[in-house]
Amino acid sequence: MLLGRVTGSLWATRKDEKLNGLKFMLVEVWNTTANQPEGNLVAADNAGAGIGDLVLVVQGKAARISAENLDVPIDAMIVGVVDSLEKNDDV
Amino acid sequence: MLLGRVTGSLWATRKDEKLNGLKFMLVEVWNTTANQPEGNLVAADNAGAGIGDLVLVVQGKAARISAENLDVPIDAMIVGVVDSLEKNDDV
Amino acid sequence: MLLGRVTGSLWATRKDEKLNGLKFMLVEVWNTTANQPEGNLVAADNAGAGIGDLVLVVQGKAARISAENLDVPIDAMIVGVVDSLEKNDDV
Amino acid sequence: MLLGRVTGSLWATRKDEKLNGLKFMLVEVWNTTANQPEGNLVAADNAGAGIGDLVLVVQGKAARISAENLDVPIDAMIVGVVDSLEKNDDV
Amino acid sequence: MLLGRVTGSLWATRKDEKLNGLKFMLVEVWNTTANQPEGNLVAADNAGAGIGDLVLVVQGKAARISAENLDVPIDAMIVGVVDSLEKNDDV
Repeated sequence: MLLGRVTGSLWATRKDEKLNGLKFMLVEVWNTTANQPEGNLVAADNAGAGIGDLVLVVQGKAARISAENLDVPIDAMIVGVVDSLEKNDDV
Repeated sequence: MLLGRVTGSLWATRKDEKLNGLKFMLVEVWNTTANQPEGNLVAADNAGAGIGDLVLVVQGKAARISAENLDVPIDAMIVGVVDSLEKNDDV
Repeated sequence: MLLGRVTGSLWATRKDEKLNGLKFMLVEVWNTTANQPEGNLVAADNAGAGIGDLVLVVQGKAARISAENLDVPIDAMIVGVVDSLEKNDDV
Repeated sequence: MLLGRVTGSLWATRKDEKLNGLKFMLVEVWNTTANQPEGNLVAADNAGAGIGDLVLVVQGKAARISAENLDVPIDAMIVGVVDSLEKNDDV
Repeated sequence: MLLGRVTGSLWATRKDEKLNGLKFMLVEVWNTTANQPEGNLVAADNAGAGIGDLVLVVQGKAARISAENLDVPIDAMIVGVVDSLEKNDDV
């Protein structure tokens, strides 16, 4: 899973109609070593995430498993909102 | 999903005939943090995208799910044209 | 498989309930050529890993195969704790 | 799909025998934004590509779909030789 | 497929028992354009590779297809030892 921060949302009117009803969030992938973002992706949301939340994102088929719909053409899903991250920088 | 901008199109006469009838677009992957492109890919189009459009691209099996044809040898598909992107740079 | 070092753990209360019961570890991907980390990911753990351990991480469906549950929406799993790594820098 | 340029070929005598009969090409992934290569991969060829050709490469299962053999252990296939690439740098 | 060089091997006592009997090699991914390594991964071996060998590595399901065991939690396999690589730098 990727660790990311939700930084926005987006709308698409012209789209594959199999995506109807899904909300798409812009997620900045977060590099905890450098403490900076490295790239971004767009994910559907199955965890009720909001702007600013630190989230877990799964990719590939895991996104469709989370959606409980293997026929939806998505490849990224927010599956959790991180409450607490404990990092040990000494290791 | 990746966020990208359609910057071109391409033609291939010699190809796997299972690709016949598909149109391929050149898509620059867009990094919204740095506000610059980072690499590019080629995708089929299931959203009626044109040059200059900001688009959503799915990869892997999701591309074939969007095509509603699991036997077509593609791994990237434009599934939406982005109308509006709202980004919060304060988070 | 990726080689990584476990540097932390994280908790998510709001999440896809299909993730209940899984523990998530923060793993820094380790570049053995540069001897420095390059990015990080979050993985479930099937090897009893602890903070500081050098671990093997599988991605994609292999993570669900390791979990012996193809319906869990994860895409990364720690499958081994490395005891010994022998590297030959002369080749 | 990736856009790449065929820059070489390679031979392997000791190999998984399920690869027998396949020809492997060295492909430089081409970044059309920077007009420079960024990394490379090795792909089988289903489009009759030659040295110097600009090609389309699919990855993952799409490579095996192109081969019309889901039991061959490959993850990259050249599926087209690009005749013409029209890029608009103003967008 | 990736082109890489075997630079080491590693052992893991605590591991998913479905990995028992597999040998894991450290592989440096080789960038033929820059003639330098770019990152590394760990792969099982189905080609009898040794330290220093230039090898072909498949990723994802292709690794399990090579193993002829779709239930083993691996995502990278050495499928060939490269005897000869002919690269044309003029194209």
